[in-house]
Amino acid sequence: MEAVRMIKIGLVQSRATVEPEDNIRRTMAAIRAVAARGAQIVSTQELFCSRYFCQHEDARYFDLAEPIPGPTTKKLQDLARELQVVIVGSLFEERAAGLYHNTAVIIDADGALLGTYRKMHIPDDPGFSEKYYFAPGDQGFRVWNTRYARLGVLVCWDQWFPEAARLTAMQGAEILFYPTAIGWLPGERDEGGLKFLDAWRTIQRSHAIANGCYVAAVNRVGREEGGEASGFIDFWGGSFVADPLGQVVAEASMDDEQSLIASIDLGQITTARIEWPFFRDRRIDAYHGLTQRLLDQRPSRVDAGVRDPSSPTD
Amino acid sequence: MEAVRMIKIGLVQSRATVEPEDNIRRTMAAIRAVAARGAQIVSTQELFCSRYFCQHEDARYFDLAEPIPGPTTKKLQDLARELQVVIVGSLFEERAAGLYHNTAVIIDADGALLGTYRKMHIPDDPGFSEKYYFAPGDQGFRVWNTRYARLGVLVCWDQWFPEAARLTAMQGAEILFYPTAIGWLPGERDEGGLKFLDAWRTIQRSHAIANGCYVAAVNRVGREEGGEASGFIDFWGGSFVADPLGQVVAEASMDDEQSLIASIDLGQITTARIEWPFFRDRRIDAYHGLTQRLLDQRPSRVDAGVRDPSSPTD
Repeated sequence: MEAVRMIKIGLVQSRATVEPEDNIRRTMAAIRAVAARGAQIVSTQELFCSRYFCQHEDARYFDLAEPIPGPTTKKLQDLARELQVVIVGSLFEERAAGLYHNTAVIIDADGALLGTYRKMHIPDDPGFSEKYYFAPGDQGFRVWNTRYARLGVLVCWDQWFPEAARLTAMQGAEILFYPTAIGWLPGERDEGGLKFLDAWRTIQRSHAIANGCYVAAVNRVGREEGGEASGFIDFWGGSFVADPLGQVVAEASMDDEQSLIASIDLGQITTARIEWPFFRDRRIDAYHGLTQRLLDQRPSRVDAGVRDPSSPTD
Repeated sequence: MEAVRMIKIGLVQSRATVEPEDNIRRTMAAIRAVAARGAQIVSTQELFCSRYFCQHEDARYFDLAEPIPGPTTKKLQDLARELQVVIVGSLFEERAAGLYHNTAVIIDADGALLGTYRKMHIPDDPGFSEKYYFAPGDQGFRVWNTRYARLGVLVCWDQWFPEAARLTAMQGAEILFYPTAIGWLPGERDEGGLKFLDAWRTIQRSHAIANGCYVAAVNRVGREEGGEASGFIDFWGGSFVADPLGQVVAEASMDDEQSLIASIDLGQITTARIEWPFFRDRRIDAYHGLTQRLLDQRPSRVDAGVRDPSSPTD
């Protein structure tokens, strides 16, 4: 029904070493390789320059941060311009003295830095001490018109929040990119850990379905030691692309480095949304409760015509 | 970590005939049977009293509607009291002359009518002409404290909207029940129709994950002829229960009537939410855009500290 609009996207899933220069060099080589295979938009995994240092709290790791624009941004811009590809790169941003963010840079195919997305939802769980390192994003949810598609970028923990995907899709994102660092703590893989991986895939596939758009999740892979206190994390790889019906159309290994390429048809977005017109039917008159922490109190206001959803019982 | 709190829920998936009395009689017999097997909360499928008349627009079908409370509500109340079970029943409500809703009744185990949920999101697609029959709900999203659990009830098309699940879970729902009528139009099953079924399962499983609660979807089954204009719908059954990690813990046939029973541990809700504390980290300062139809315009207001998400580009 809709015109076909094919593009190729590339997802660089890699194993990080303790040497940032090594990680940057290998990731840039991988971007070059997927571009040679036709990828037009390429995303790195979350914090691709380093190991996942958030396994424990150590002030020395702030040395890994850099300003944006800065040296790594510049390298990615030069590479994007040379290859004529759009690059989504996930960096550890030093914004000011003592103020750091988990930030993605969005670089157009001519090398222009279109902007940044600062991770809005920051986790803090055993082995994932991100609240220590990163201030929550203060730019909200965003999209960018790149040469090849209109992109939304969200980062890792954001993927568990339907609100983030919705607010990004509502701005016209055709693809939601999720640079990610997720894996199993010691013992988890054998203790039902495949359920976690399945939940991770399911929630992101659901964002594709609910919003009739593509989703691309780019995870790191391999074991990273976290020191005696926290053990290690086995990052589970499994980077994937889901289409607007939530079908996985490309998927990477759970065990190895892999640069995944997916050919996707952006025309399917319109087709899916005409088939399932969720945007037509959203009850925006009844959603104001979503800006509350919980609806455990009597209503403070009632919108005309709709009983306030915070009313707990009949 | 949390105390185990086991309950049994029952889902009555049936094949509707053209005789409402027959459907009511058989559904009540099925409720009696699952109660005998230990079910404490039982849900019917959507509009269980009749065939899915919304396949086309015909004013004669309004004769199927009845007031709430009314004769069928009364029968369900009497049955709930006799069996000491909670019943969620999906009915065609005549609210006033010319004003109809697609409404669920929530009946406690002592037979008390706790309240109603009027379907908020109303579909209108070929074969599903619900906007002709049903006014959109005007009560918002709701929960009820029943004898055995705190329930949220949503209906069919609601299941595609993460906002509905979230607003119900935010009121403390431990289980989200979705009475449903979904299936394939002629030809769809063979033309990739399993993707639709998979999307339907996936989006509902995602609500369980995002909200750390149980989800129970109760669908009808079997072919219903819709007349020469619309052909038929093959309702795909497949009623299921998902746990707070989104795992399907019980699932019914795609081809036959089946009363499904699932033993679920409500203690898992707290366990899942401590493991994945999404409610802690929701960015309620940045969600106000969710009450917009689309974020395709420049911002009209900016919340303090957070750039308005409706700003389309950098």
